[in-house]
Amino acid sequence: MAREDDRVSISRRQVVGTAAIGAAGIAAGLGVGKVAEPAAAQTRPPARAGAQKAEVAPGELDEYYVFFSSGQTGEVRIIGMPSMRELMRIPVFNRCSATGWGQTNESIKILTEGLTPETRERLKGRANTDWQNGDTHHPHMSFTDGTYDGRYVFINDKANTRLARIRTDIMKCDKIVEVPNQYTIHGMRPQKYPRTGYLFCNGEYEVPLPNDGKVLDDKSKYSSIFSAVDGDTMKVAWQVIVDGNLDNTDADYQGKYAFSTCYNSERGVTLAEMTASEQDWVTIFNIKRIEEAVKKGDYKEMNGVPVIDGRHGSPYTRYVPVSNSPHGLNTAPDGIHVVANGKLAPTVTVIDVRLVDQLFEDKIKPRDVVVAEPELGLGPLHTAFDGKGNAYTTLFLDSQVCKWNIELARRAFRGEKVNPIVHKLDVHYQPGHNHSSMGETKEADSKWLLSLNKFSKDRFLNVGPLKPENDQLIDISGDRMQLVHDGPSFAEPHDAVIVHRSKLEGRVLSIWKRDDPFFEDARKQAAADGVTLESDAKVVRDGNKVRVYMYSSAPAYALDKFDVKQGDEVTVYVTNIDDVEDLTHGFCIVNYGINMEIDPQQTSSVTFVADRPGVYWYFCTWFCHAMHMEMRGRMLVHPRNV
Amino acid sequence: MAREDDRVSISRRQVVGTAAIGAAGIAAGLGVGKVAEPAAAQTRPPARAGAQKAEVAPGELDEYYVFFSSGQTGEVRIIGMPSMRELMRIPVFNRCSATGWGQTNESIKILTEGLTPETRERLKGRANTDWQNGDTHHPHMSFTDGTYDGRYVFINDKANTRLARIRTDIMKCDKIVEVPNQYTIHGMRPQKYPRTGYLFCNGEYEVPLPNDGKVLDDKSKYSSIFSAVDGDTMKVAWQVIVDGNLDNTDADYQGKYAFSTCYNSERGVTLAEMTASEQDWVTIFNIKRIEEAVKKGDYKEMNGVPVIDGRHGSPYTRYVPVSNSPHGLNTAPDGIHVVANGKLAPTVTVIDVRLVDQLFEDKIKPRDVVVAEPELGLGPLHTAFDGKGNAYTTLFLDSQVCKWNIELARRAFRGEKVNPIVHKLDVHYQPGHNHSSMGETKEADSKWLLSLNKFSKDRFLNVGPLKPENDQLIDISGDRMQLVHDGPSFAEPHDAVIVHRSKLEGRVLSIWKRDDPFFEDARKQAAADGVTLESDAKVVRDGNKVRVYMYSSAPAYALDKFDVKQGDEVTVYVTNIDDVEDLTHGFCIVNYGINMEIDPQQTSSVTFVADRPGVYWYFCTWFCHAMHMEMRGRMLVHPRNV
Repeated sequence: MAREDDRVSISRRQVVGTAAIGAAGIAAGLGVGKVAEPAAAQTRPPARAGAQKAEVAPGELDEYYVFFSSGQTGEVRIIGMPSMRELMRIPVFNRCSATGWGQTNESIKILTEGLTPETRERLKGRANTDWQNGDTHHPHMSFTDGTYDGRYVFINDKANTRLARIRTDIMKCDKIVEVPNQYTIHGMRPQKYPRTGYLFCNGEYEVPLPNDGKVLDDKSKYSSIFSAVDGDTMKVAWQVIVDGNLDNTDADYQGKYAFSTCYNSERGVTLAEMTASEQDWVTIFNIKRIEEAVKKGDYKEMNGVPVIDGRHGSPYTRYVPVSNSPHGLNTAPDGIHVVANGKLAPTVTVIDVRLVDQLFEDKIKPRDVVVAEPELGLGPLHTAFDGKGNAYTTLFLDSQVCKWNIELARRAFRGEKVNPIVHKLDVHYQPGHNHSSMGETKEADSKWLLSLNKFSKDRFLNVGPLKPENDQLIDISGDRMQLVHDGPSFAEPHDAVIVHRSKLEGRVLSIWKRDDPFFEDARKQAAADGVTLESDAKVVRDGNKVRVYMYSSAPAYALDKFDVKQGDEVTVYVTNIDDVEDLTHGFCIVNYGINMEIDPQQTSSVTFVADRPGVYWYFCTWFCHAMHMEMRGRMLVHPRNV
Repeated sequence: MAREDDRVSISRRQVVGTAAIGAAGIAAGLGVGKVAEPAAAQTRPPARAGAQKAEVAPGELDEYYVFFSSGQTGEVRIIGMPSMRELMRIPVFNRCSATGWGQTNESIKILTEGLTPETRERLKGRANTDWQNGDTHHPHMSFTDGTYDGRYVFINDKANTRLARIRTDIMKCDKIVEVPNQYTIHGMRPQKYPRTGYLFCNGEYEVPLPNDGKVLDDKSKYSSIFSAVDGDTMKVAWQVIVDGNLDNTDADYQGKYAFSTCYNSERGVTLAEMTASEQDWVTIFNIKRIEEAVKKGDYKEMNGVPVIDGRHGSPYTRYVPVSNSPHGLNTAPDGIHVVANGKLAPTVTVIDVRLVDQLFEDKIKPRDVVVAEPELGLGPLHTAFDGKGNAYTTLFLDSQVCKWNIELARRAFRGEKVNPIVHKLDVHYQPGHNHSSMGETKEADSKWLLSLNKFSKDRFLNVGPLKPENDQLIDISGDRMQLVHDGPSFAEPHDAVIVHRSKLEGRVLSIWKRDDPFFEDARKQAAADGVTLESDAKVVRDGNKVRVYMYSSAPAYALDKFDVKQGDEVTVYVTNIDDVEDLTHGFCIVNYGINMEIDPQQTSSVTFVADRPGVYWYFCTWFCHAMHMEMRGRMLVHPRNV
């Protein structure tokens, strides 16, 4: 590893000379002091490094599920850890050619039913679901009592202000809600206690409310919104108008408070304006008081949502000043500490949750909840925890992860001459989020850390002007961190949660249940048509609407042909009656732009207009059998005038 | 490895008891004999196994680029080998949320300009490009003199009968052609000598020609088509009508012939009909004779393409009988042997190219070109080569790779008592394509073999009813094959080519050239508007069309706002003037469904209707800088009536 460390240091310095120089320059101009390499960390005797390996032998299973956002790719990815192999892509806000997500009736329902009435009206008549882009940032699993309960994974869409839920039994998205009155969801975190419960969604961008064009350029009338979505119903429970804007968020382990960073307290609309102040703040939300306000009616209703005024002076929020433009917000597994990461300041600010009651009771001042503020390096963005009292903060500009001790940081804040920094490790390059194994729960296990790096530059074979990001796997089982694996990933990893496989054991299905709500509409329509999905092969004509029902069993569809007329609106229902694990079928119509996935015991359906006469073969797109190539049939489209 | 081998044998047998049983049953019914474990292979003394490793240390580079199809996902993937890490996704026939593929003007042009006039007309007015699904099967690199020349990667779309080309300097698709008169492209291979040259495209599905609905259910009037596309112009050069259908194809090393398997010589339209005959055939195309026919006019023109009649009795083709339903077709690096894989027969059929001249001169009978026909096991689908005289055939039903020696197979065919089988290795499970390093070129290097397995079942953490496929990496440097890595992949790997990195060294760009044809239209429009893309921030109004020009430099867009009116057709051009490697920007408009990628020195553009009044922030979707969050601006949409 010595050689690797040497190589890496040079590379890091090269980077600082290129991409980051602008930022460093600007940061310096904003009064951010340059932090020297921590002498303490360097002069300590070499400590024990971890000895875990990334390699997982053929046939062996990974120990952790990692649920990755994919950034602007719009999906969620499941990665196995420590091998860092991509096990599955879950389409969410994107159009997926393989599964038919965005084309099947089942997916279109999920993609559209939670949109606001205004958006549904606006997208009407446009192909399928239209909003085929998303920008997923923060995947998080549902909690019960401070740890993962395995039920759901939630993910936000920054691009089009949506929140999605993934059912972990089928690993498919089952609900999407567009959050009204809000423009982008950036930070998103689940309630940790007593359970999820709420999903807290930060509105990052400030707009006039309502945003109907009557107010445009007058920034004094712009606001940001904090939303709580009910994770069980996937409806917006309530919203809070805040001062400034909202970046990242996290919830406490007591079910009392949520915390958000604000980087634009100035409410600026240009870069210079947004970074003008020496200080921004952390906004703290008092969940109980807000719930009471909703009960007693202290809100305005906007687009069906109770909206509470949480600006300065309100009983619902407190604003804790921190240095300019904080970014990440992370609560520690000890249930006590909350860390706001400095971004343009070299520090992180540590809040003690136990002091927040007094702050809301006005017994102390906002800054009195701060118990540590260690200086870690340039560009601190996010912090993870090992459950043993250590924190790991990504330093974007320094391209490092800094391991530091929370208790030492508290002692230093009280004036003791101690250095809280334990170890710094170069990463490649410019890390954003990081995440430790089980580290956002009370069961943090101090085994692994992922550093999600925004640049990979020279770390992989050159694949053109668009480079992969680099998700690096770091062993944190020893005193010193050790880099064990570079993981390229397509735009953009952004954030991830690391879930021990025991949390999902016995929960994940291999065969669909025939009564799954996912294809409830197909069951209803079949019943109305007198069709048994599992055993009938039947064409039902209803004016110019044609419903084609067939089942599939490798290597054949129950119908080897069906007839329709040009101009018919055709719905094809395919039920995969194979009940063998992994025996998925597809249904693709040649030159018709139609394809969908049908897993064992699933029913899928797709609707289209048969606008082109002639013979069109449909075929199975999942290689299912030795005679897979022969698994095909014909759609015969009679010309309009015949 | 002993323990792994034991475990694996059990798993394989479990599988034969489940998914494959139906196939085995049917295959047996069709007269396919069960092949016992090869005694010869098992009684030989243990031979040297390879000793290569899959692991690539952090910061080290892979030795090979692997270009993977993605099957029904519609993209092409670049994997690094031996680490098997996904380095990049190249959107081709799919809609990509991250890059804006299918939404940017540059991509829409590529996706639509090569469609047939009929399809263009049909898709007019439908959102963006509509055909947002593809089924990519066979990626291949361009050749010069029998080996890769690094210029292009080509990929077919089975779903909508398209062929695409990827420029390896920018790793983006630059041309797509829809092949007319043909319904699906299945097998696709490049001409190997003297250069590519042609891309040979197999029409798998039989339809009436023209397919306008006048003939529908009369299968006696159905035909299949073989196409040659010019790789330089990406226009269809010529087509050949054949008897039967066409499955997989490959070209010789002499530039004289192309070979295709036919599994449906019966021209059946049901499973029973398609598998009725004891024999199907390999169709051989005589390239020179076909070119001469085109020159002298021995063709019918259909949709602008010269279509030659190559059915039985024509001078342009020969039909070599082989056992029922062959599948893969592979020419060996020795330039001599061509292997057709039996699928429903346990054999592969080996043709000696040197005999084909005589076949076309009618000096010998079709079966006289066959020089070996070894029995390998159940379900032989595809064969790869090591350049040392050995072949590696996937056995779908047996879930094995069979290593066999071509010369021994020839001797056995001549009646000698020799066993050509060298070694069999269990794979997991049901392998389809396989590929050896540089193995489809004359520079096959006998290092690595990939087995692309259709089922993974229990090999990875359970991720729901849809399982990943499993691309297994096998060391073939020793006498015995050795499995070193399981590689899960999203639907569906299908096929891959393994290219030594030296073939692309110095060719792949990190920064776009400003005169790249990819964004030529943007340069032309800017010139017409008197705009300098690299330095102007300007809004040009032209009736209700508004062109917004801006450049970007981390962390800012040159325009921090622009005004349009509700109902305007807006085109935004963004030029990324950063010239730092890996410093990609994005441009996403909140709640407008718009996002695109802009790499260093690239110009990208997107057109949309501003149908919703109000303030809409645009932001950078690639984390580019410490102040990335602040890289945003406002689109102010004035209401229609104001």
